[in-house]
Amino acid sequence: MTANKEIVAGDIGGTNARFCLARIEQGRVVALGETVQIQTRDVGGFAEAWSIFARETGRPLPREAAIAIACPVQGEVLKLTNTHWSIRPAALKAKLGLERLDFINDFGAVGHSLSQLQEPDYVHLAGPPGPLPAQGIITIVGPGTGLGVAQVLRTATHTHVLECEGGHISFAPLDEFEDELLARLRARHGRVSAERVVSGPGLRAIDETLAAARNLPAHPGPDAALWQSGIDGVDEIAMEAISRFGAALGAVAGDYALAHGASAVVIAGGIIPRLLHILPRTGFVHRFLDKGRFQPLMARIPVKLIVHACPGLLGAASTAA
Amino acid sequence: MTANKEIVAGDIGGTNARFCLARIEQGRVVALGETVQIQTRDVGGFAEAWSIFARETGRPLPREAAIAIACPVQGEVLKLTNTHWSIRPAALKAKLGLERLDFINDFGAVGHSLSQLQEPDYVHLAGPPGPLPAQGIITIVGPGTGLGVAQVLRTATHTHVLECEGGHISFAPLDEFEDELLARLRARHGRVSAERVVSGPGLRAIDETLAAARNLPAHPGPDAALWQSGIDGVDEIAMEAISRFGAALGAVAGDYALAHGASAVVIAGGIIPRLLHILPRTGFVHRFLDKGRFQPLMARIPVKLIVHACPGLLGAASTAA
Repeated sequence: MTANKEIVAGDIGGTNARFCLARIEQGRVVALGETVQIQTRDVGGFAEAWSIFARETGRPLPREAAIAIACPVQGEVLKLTNTHWSIRPAALKAKLGLERLDFINDFGAVGHSLSQLQEPDYVHLAGPPGPLPAQGIITIVGPGTGLGVAQVLRTATHTHVLECEGGHISFAPLDEFEDELLARLRARHGRVSAERVVSGPGLRAIDETLAAARNLPAHPGPDAALWQSGIDGVDEIAMEAISRFGAALGAVAGDYALAHGASAVVIAGGIIPRLLHILPRTGFVHRFLDKGRFQPLMARIPVKLIVHACPGLLGAASTAA
Repeated sequence: MTANKEIVAGDIGGTNARFCLARIEQGRVVALGETVQIQTRDVGGFAEAWSIFARETGRPLPREAAIAIACPVQGEVLKLTNTHWSIRPAALKAKLGLERLDFINDFGAVGHSLSQLQEPDYVHLAGPPGPLPAQGIITIVGPGTGLGVAQVLRTATHTHVLECEGGHISFAPLDEFEDELLARLRARHGRVSAERVVSGPGLRAIDETLAAARNLPAHPGPDAALWQSGIDGVDEIAMEAISRFGAALGAVAGDYALAHGASAVVIAGGIIPRLLHILPRTGFVHRFLDKGRFQPLMARIPVKLIVHACPGLLGAASTAA
């Protein structure tokens, strides 16, 4: 059992960096403090974001920090996949005067959060209801700025959080619309990963393809406005784009479940709480199940959405617990 | 440490069932006896194949058997994915008068074989040379009658063989030829899994697509003859089909490595020993590496071919060791 302590927990994505204080007692994260959110593009890097958090906190920060980050955690320099930040953990630890500064992959962090999340932190989406299975593999899929994927292996005695870069598998189109979407994205990017479709920016590509088929211009403005139009139900093409997004998410979540040998699937990511009531009305469940003769196997896999406000912060904190 | 003993090891695929005696000493499989191979379509089921093996062996069989099988191992009835056999383990054990009869998924068995295989059982194909990493995830990919996939997680203290049905993820086309291949297969099957392309029968679909583009008839005759034409280098389209097969295998192996977070990839399967000298000349390595900005990560993953004659038998036997 570890000592009770307070640490700084962080979660750095392609769009936002979040920090909070986390209280750890008897090996559990018992409280997350108020979250300070900073847009990564607004600041020069980690140290600047840290000083903003320190200023907002208004008192000396703990000298231990556990940070989730949206890139592979290996080597001397961490380069965030979807932003300009790059981080040298050893130098940063010295610069900030910390005793301990640990980075983990952000979807690894979501994996670690499963041990801390409670039943009300989930919403059931498909498959058998009830709590997540105590043993076996849980696949975590999380569309955000990118597409995060992780596996959690629970055995009788251990939990292994297995990080991966599953969002970068190739996109597999399942109908003529997705063929057209693939053709557009391939012309732009060459190879097309699942993340190009199943992510925040992916909705833009779906919208453009839908609009082009109708000889209409695509929606102008930022991705966030497009998402909002679809979620609010004020725009038919934006709504159809979200429906298409849900179908693509369901398809790829099913593919990860097959590739992992999963006994459950958990959907996380910043967009998910806002899609809570929409996702069941998209093609998500149909496409998740639609794996040919493996449909009965898919139907036995519970699928849940994480509705906790920031499982990345919770998971990062739990690694220090 | 388990007692020294002899067991029957089996490996039942969609095309062939193989049996042999396996000698286990001090927890290791020290010898596999002569293999008896039976075409599954030639016999009515497991019990008939078992009696052929018993007759060929010419002496009473051990009363313990460990059998690898090409289907998910769950429930009271095992239904082979690509053949007409179905097996009720409990009834079969009684019928054959066995003390112990264990079934494991065939690609799970290949996973178990890694602990028994020696350096000469591998041929290096891509990435850093040297032995497989002692820790982390090893992805196993095996085209045969279907497309087998498994993960092996090695920690400091344990080895977990994680079975999955990864061959059934959706096929992701990467160029215009594969778009055309997907269109043909989709017209025939509806949803198209990776296995429809990356398997023994998959070469047929590739050949048909190549021939159609040239307004030529596809090769007649069984799949085995088509494979042989390509391997022998006597037919240009068959050779190109194998080159295309290698590229598709490389692409999907890379996708599994990304989805698993693998630190190594092992290619197994009945076709592989015959492709030993051909696979490096196909697009395998290029497509394995070609994962956009993740190319440097892919280049650090060793890829090896298993050239052991039957890792499934070895792995099944090792589960009894």
